[in-house]
Amino acid sequence: MRTLDICFTPELLHLYNLEQKAVVIVDILRATSCMVTGLAHGAEYLIPVSSIEACKTLQKQGYVAAAERNGEIVAGFDLGNSPFDYQKFALSGAAIALTTTNGTLAIEKSKAAAEVLIGAFLNISALAEYLKSSVHNEVLIVCAGWKGNFNLEDTLFAGALVTLLTPHFGLASDSALAAQYLFKAAEADMLGFLKQSSHYKRLSRLNIKEDIEFCLKYDVYNNIPVLKEAKLVNISLIKH
Amino acid sequence: MRTLDICFTPELLHLYNLEQKAVVIVDILRATSCMVTGLAHGAEYLIPVSSIEACKTLQKQGYVAAAERNGEIVAGFDLGNSPFDYQKFALSGAAIALTTTNGTLAIEKSKAAAEVLIGAFLNISALAEYLKSSVHNEVLIVCAGWKGNFNLEDTLFAGALVTLLTPHFGLASDSALAAQYLFKAAEADMLGFLKQSSHYKRLSRLNIKEDIEFCLKYDVYNNIPVLKEAKLVNISLIKH
Repeated sequence: MRTLDICFTPELLHLYNLEQKAVVIVDILRATSCMVTGLAHGAEYLIPVSSIEACKTLQKQGYVAAAERNGEIVAGFDLGNSPFDYQKFALSGAAIALTTTNGTLAIEKSKAAAEVLIGAFLNISALAEYLKSSVHNEVLIVCAGWKGNFNLEDTLFAGALVTLLTPHFGLASDSALAAQYLFKAAEADMLGFLKQSSHYKRLSRLNIKEDIEFCLKYDVYNNIPVLKEAKLVNISLIKH
Repeated sequence: MRTLDICFTPELLHLYNLEQKAVVIVDILRATSCMVTGLAHGAEYLIPVSSIEACKTLQKQGYVAAAERNGEIVAGFDLGNSPFDYQKFALSGAAIALTTTNGTLAIEKSKAAAEVLIGAFLNISALAEYLKSSVHNEVLIVCAGWKGNFNLEDTLFAGALVTLLTPHFGLASDSALAAQYLFKAAEADMLGFLKQSSHYKRLSRLNIKEDIEFCLKYDVYNNIPVLKEAKLVNISLIKH
């Protein structure tokens, strides 16, 4: 039986053996939503880096550089962490370096996996189809969370993906079961459900409700970013 | 506003500052259920220890010694991890040393807290009443989980306790929100809900369904174990 599991935060990744696994990185608000959007809109590739310093260095080398901490753009960088930033025509063909509070760290910590994929509601159906036919029999969804802890929006995405994949995979843990139940409870009104969450409140103060609404849309794109030699590129077999 | 939070596993405890907090340790199947039961039935005190070796040493010093790993009693010890073991008349007045797969480790890692309490469905209402009138304004429920990871039964207890305390506390995180939703989904048929969980399946193989049913009972006891100088004793203001 193929197995599907969820790691609620990168702080728990040491509990998993990643070698044989396809890992899906999730940071719905907003890093992985931005990554999917940027590559859907023609960026050549993205380089996720953990630190602001590393991102600055790449900026000096000519990369378009995106840096976010605590929900806001870091001074001196070209882009923040809004998916609308990544829809700009000027980014077509660009190489983008980016660092975010949670999402890029989750990627860094998952590098040992057999395959590292980027998931968001924006590409969820394409991703589910890809995983169904993947050569990897173990899939682990890694929620970026918030500063090491559990968060609701990444868990809801994980629950949605579990729901799409359930007939094809067995659930490996209570985390996967719990995420599926939470998604069921939230599905009919995801935005309403998330309004209670800590991150929604945090981001609402920053006036980015449009970002949140966009990040909760299903299947706006059908590309799937994958990590290849430290760069995120679209999986080539997917038309986009 | 007083705050209430949930830590899903001891592996995430480093994210919290425990100093000002009352911590509730939860290991429903079955360590904290056993602790409540043992002290309700007249044991003088319990000493939780992390290792089998430390437990063996205390046994040689004359303690009644309980050791469980992976759901089963460890050879050479007096008790396992069944709450029925702790109802025996012979334990009245006894000093018991115990070590379990997850629960005793959660206690060990929570020692820096202002107060360490033991929670189970068996004493949930007494515990909720105590917390409502506690001098501590921050309460953290620490789920013992399973080998470092999230589990369903401890989270359901946490959600039940959150539900009892909600009018008196604000929820500090998405973890608390999620636990409350999961409890709502499970409340009508907790045993049925848990039958899907990994630990239920693990324990069912060990033929301890009666243990599970007992551990899901509300308010069988009204004592509250508290950690005092490395020993668990009943809080004296509670009649039992």
